[in-house]
Amino acid sequence: MKIHQRIRTAVMTTTVMLTLSGALGGTAVTLYGDEGMYLFNDLPKETLKSRHDFEITQAWADHLRLSSVRFNSGGSGSFVSSDGLVLTNHHVASDTLHKLSTPERNLIDDGFTARSIDEELKAPDLELNQLHSIENVTDRVNAAVDDDADPETAFKQRRAIIATIENESFESTGFRSDVITLFGGAQYHLYRYKKYTDVRLVWAPETAAAFFGGDADNFEYPRYNLDATLMRVYEDGKPAKLEHFLAWNDQPLQGGELVFVSGNPGRTQRIYTVDALRYLRDDRLPYVLDYLRRKEILMQQFSLNGAEAKRRGRDELFGIQNARKAYTGMLAGLQNPQTFAAKKGREDKLLAAIADDASLAPLADAWQDVAKLQKEKADMLDQSVNLRSSLFSLAMNTVLLAEEDTKPNEQRLSEFTDAGRESLLQRLLSTAPIYDDLETVKLADELSRLIEVRGADDDLVVEILAGKGPRERAAEIVAGTRMNEVPYRKELVDGGRAVVLQSDDPMIQLARWLEPEYRRIREINEKIDERERQAYAKITEATTAVEGTGGYPDATFTLRLAFGTVNGYDEDGKWIEPTTDFAGAFTHAADHEGQEDFDLPSRWYDAKDRLDLSTQLNFVCTADIIGGNSGSPVVDRDGKLVGLIFDGNIQSLTADYLYSDEQARAVSVSAVGIREAIEKIYQAPDLAKSLGQ
Amino acid sequence: MKIHQRIRTAVMTTTVMLTLSGALGGTAVTLYGDEGMYLFNDLPKETLKSRHDFEITQAWADHLRLSSVRFNSGGSGSFVSSDGLVLTNHHVASDTLHKLSTPERNLIDDGFTARSIDEELKAPDLELNQLHSIENVTDRVNAAVDDDADPETAFKQRRAIIATIENESFESTGFRSDVITLFGGAQYHLYRYKKYTDVRLVWAPETAAAFFGGDADNFEYPRYNLDATLMRVYEDGKPAKLEHFLAWNDQPLQGGELVFVSGNPGRTQRIYTVDALRYLRDDRLPYVLDYLRRKEILMQQFSLNGAEAKRRGRDELFGIQNARKAYTGMLAGLQNPQTFAAKKGREDKLLAAIADDASLAPLADAWQDVAKLQKEKADMLDQSVNLRSSLFSLAMNTVLLAEEDTKPNEQRLSEFTDAGRESLLQRLLSTAPIYDDLETVKLADELSRLIEVRGADDDLVVEILAGKGPRERAAEIVAGTRMNEVPYRKELVDGGRAVVLQSDDPMIQLARWLEPEYRRIREINEKIDERERQAYAKITEATTAVEGTGGYPDATFTLRLAFGTVNGYDEDGKWIEPTTDFAGAFTHAADHEGQEDFDLPSRWYDAKDRLDLSTQLNFVCTADIIGGNSGSPVVDRDGKLVGLIFDGNIQSLTADYLYSDEQARAVSVSAVGIREAIEKIYQAPDLAKSLGQ
Repeated sequence: MKIHQRIRTAVMTTTVMLTLSGALGGTAVTLYGDEGMYLFNDLPKETLKSRHDFEITQAWADHLRLSSVRFNSGGSGSFVSSDGLVLTNHHVASDTLHKLSTPERNLIDDGFTARSIDEELKAPDLELNQLHSIENVTDRVNAAVDDDADPETAFKQRRAIIATIENESFESTGFRSDVITLFGGAQYHLYRYKKYTDVRLVWAPETAAAFFGGDADNFEYPRYNLDATLMRVYEDGKPAKLEHFLAWNDQPLQGGELVFVSGNPGRTQRIYTVDALRYLRDDRLPYVLDYLRRKEILMQQFSLNGAEAKRRGRDELFGIQNARKAYTGMLAGLQNPQTFAAKKGREDKLLAAIADDASLAPLADAWQDVAKLQKEKADMLDQSVNLRSSLFSLAMNTVLLAEEDTKPNEQRLSEFTDAGRESLLQRLLSTAPIYDDLETVKLADELSRLIEVRGADDDLVVEILAGKGPRERAAEIVAGTRMNEVPYRKELVDGGRAVVLQSDDPMIQLARWLEPEYRRIREINEKIDERERQAYAKITEATTAVEGTGGYPDATFTLRLAFGTVNGYDEDGKWIEPTTDFAGAFTHAADHEGQEDFDLPSRWYDAKDRLDLSTQLNFVCTADIIGGNSGSPVVDRDGKLVGLIFDGNIQSLTADYLYSDEQARAVSVSAVGIREAIEKIYQAPDLAKSLGQ
Repeated sequence: MKIHQRIRTAVMTTTVMLTLSGALGGTAVTLYGDEGMYLFNDLPKETLKSRHDFEITQAWADHLRLSSVRFNSGGSGSFVSSDGLVLTNHHVASDTLHKLSTPERNLIDDGFTARSIDEELKAPDLELNQLHSIENVTDRVNAAVDDDADPETAFKQRRAIIATIENESFESTGFRSDVITLFGGAQYHLYRYKKYTDVRLVWAPETAAAFFGGDADNFEYPRYNLDATLMRVYEDGKPAKLEHFLAWNDQPLQGGELVFVSGNPGRTQRIYTVDALRYLRDDRLPYVLDYLRRKEILMQQFSLNGAEAKRRGRDELFGIQNARKAYTGMLAGLQNPQTFAAKKGREDKLLAAIADDASLAPLADAWQDVAKLQKEKADMLDQSVNLRSSLFSLAMNTVLLAEEDTKPNEQRLSEFTDAGRESLLQRLLSTAPIYDDLETVKLADELSRLIEVRGADDDLVVEILAGKGPRERAAEIVAGTRMNEVPYRKELVDGGRAVVLQSDDPMIQLARWLEPEYRRIREINEKIDERERQAYAKITEATTAVEGTGGYPDATFTLRLAFGTVNGYDEDGKWIEPTTDFAGAFTHAADHEGQEDFDLPSRWYDAKDRLDLSTQLNFVCTADIIGGNSGSPVVDRDGKLVGLIFDGNIQSLTADYLYSDEQARAVSVSAVGIREAIEKIYQAPDLAKSLGQ
């Protein structure tokens, strides 16, 4: 698994379908082994002391927090030098590598090394967030919601107070300010981030090294991947001067060593009731997998058009394949009767305890509410009119923005409030290339899908198709739109509602046709989410009362601390060692000679004699991670960088709803391996030397 | 499109899902251009005379019919020498090439040329059928069905009389005897076939030559494919001496030339009502495509396990990809509002005419019946328990056979009657290799799919999984079964019901668990089919009354005659020439250098200087073909072989429900090209010389 989390914003990204819906968090206070993704304002001090004899200090945690960053493209990273170097995964950076590539400069295939500051390449729309502070605003949020409000009113009241809190914070501090829903709605915390929007590419290896073994090896272990990339944050056109960055540990890791992971896990569902898991198993995951397989075949077919088509579609195809493999594993886990029985056993016990306690008994209704909501969610599954096309997404956001801007800040859809304006505009006005041939194929498939879902006789479908078949219509719209021109997008965004309404651009027209339906569906989904939030708040209350406190909320793509030990595992009776080295990479390539994705780059063979082949390359540990943790720094007791999370093994795929340390492992690139490669393979000794300095 | 039709038998093949359900035929008497797949006992004499000034004689047609063969693996072919040579497509033969391959002898990749009779390789389970006679038995079938019988009774009565007719014919003539439903149930014809079951491989090119351009070029034109293979039929261990075979025309084809196609088109739906097409568009095709994409990804993932896995899964993967591409095109055609408007316009006109005629008016109910049946069919779509696994299919057929054999012949499921016994046993006792690793992956996915469809809490699912996850359970069953041993299968088949019931083989056990559900679902589907047959018989009656007679029935994988002219077409304003040559093949390879599937075999480059590069290689014509026509001979006015059908262009994909000769074309290998390649590339001059002799 490449544990890359693409951020879910309502219509901004085209990857909405790849994430599970429902913004739920939750607690699980009966912990297992090294389970847990802890809040930086609620650290597991006692657990670390008792399990690992580690005394965590505020200074240690603050330094790690301020050295950690989040990528808006979906992923994590860390500062690793005083002059702004950022370490992340190649597969987190690949979105940027793709946008910076051209037919003549294929950064994905060939990699990149800036030989001087001047050669560093500016990312067209990357935003990095450094978490500056967390404030608990639960009381203020709850006070603004009437006790007897119906779900629709409650949702609007909650949305309004959140927008107000965010805007006040943004106005007073200048920081990006997000209110995060935690513990399934039991708590609300305000996160303030410093934003870096001038981010430049410094070094990336070839995909052949970063994704060595390809789709076949994805999720597997042992691994030998250099899934790493270096970028640099700039301020005022110069490399940023950083106070907080991670020192580099130059020693290889040993089995049993305690390590920490500081990153942004995207989404877990550990609080989910058995009925909610049943919905995942029987409805949601099969649906998502059908969707992903459809898009995978579509992108594969597009790639058959030649080398340039392959290059254009590659990043998206890889993202889809990675998600498909991850969801396949998740579903397999849920389809195992034993997994389900374990979950059910715990729930039955909990419900029995609640029934025995008169003060808790009324809370049991929440489980019924969740069960009922799953059916409503299943009905909504294929209702999206959020077409997966970059040009359409830009058009839909432009249309929504024009309308939202006519409303008071606190009544707007969450991604259009003042506090998020800068980030929104960066995405809307990105100079990233958009390819008409790819857009046409994608839009045609989405129109075809819309016919399948709504039926060809549906009024909206008839209007959109304008008497033509999906392919012909998509070609016509893409050929006619100017949404691929940044100045035209700026004209619309600056012009506001009047200008947008007057536009005869066919993609804008398509978005306008779909806008009412989009709003209708979103409103239904938000109402479901609100009711689910209320139910899980009760479930959290009941669970905490029965099982005690001290847990962690479900993942929300915000900064968390996990920990674990470097440890191998037993697989089919065979012991898998926790670490690999460069010698193993060459052996693995030789063992798979002639197989696609198993060729190391020629630079590696050229450097073989120079390399210390015993240098550690990858390792596994028991830390609790999930998609979004990609690129997270792994640090030792001293807070020094020892690795870079890039994957989970196949046994970890059930981590969405169940942590285990029996066989499930997080997979990292070793810090020592990264330095060795940069110095000896990519021959950038100065860059290698500056790491951690 | 590779127009290969995999035969649909109820549970015998694992490819049931790849064909559309419902055994419907029908008429379309308002013909367009060279439309039509004519019965050999009802030839379009007048049309051929008036359109093409061709006088078809009985002798000409009989010779062509007796020179044509049907492959039970799904496809067509022709006799092309007095000593038993059979010409078909490489992709029709690929099933056999796959079964004859081993890790050491990869016939698919490397091709094959027998240098002497002794080197010819016997196919493990191929059956070829030569159509000997056709007899109209409509009156006898109808007489056996009571006028006032309900659908269930009518179906049973019809099945019984058909089994009786087939058995009588088989007993008295020794010929394979099949009663075919034509014109949607308006007619029943008895087809008698001579069977050839000793079929040996003589020559096959490399896949790189046969499927040059791969999935990317599939459905495209111009093409440069040597999609041809030669086999030989044997009798009594010696090459069969044939009276009827096709002479070889050594002249290249010219534009405008009249040609004929004699082959076995698998299934068309031209009689379908608008509601039936709506069901295809909104339910059936989206469902089938989801299924195919699922299996395509599954097989791709299996292939990632290495070269040997790739070899094992290749034939099946190609079949799935071909079907996926074909159905994608069919759906795109149906989703074009203009296609639908055209169909609706014709139907509205017809219904208006019927309403105006008091004697026909009652027949209009049939359209309502069809509309109602489509909803019932949609509900049944995902109900199959016919798991796609070779070992499971063998087990299920063994279980069904044991039970069916306890019934009188005329009450059995159609594929278990006495007349079909030999063909059934050949498949059940085939020595074709079965690969446990591939079977495990396939069965695991089918179990997973069963959970998705029926829910994990379904009693049958719980019983089958036995407390394990799908992967674990599939591995256990495949590891434990002996169904991969031919002697064990023979023991069960010979032993009958008692022995099968006593077997503790886990795959037999799985089949026994699923048997009741299989029978229940099949009964429902057969009742729907019967009602649909009755409705379409009425529709045929009404249509014939309004539009006149002289048409052809929908395709039924039986021998038909089509005709057309060699003709290019206009595509996006560019004229596509009707013929290509060897020089074009080398140019095409050079134009796509480095792209997968665009490398010609080294033998081709070695032979380049010896070849006459201007020799015709492929051509297109307007003849009306569909899946199942693959391998059909194309003959000229003199009945001499001029080509070999292997594909339709992308514009022909709507041919299932709509013929057009504007751009839609059948694609063939030229006879002269086949001879040139065999002589000069594959250096088998004696074989080349014997073609047509």
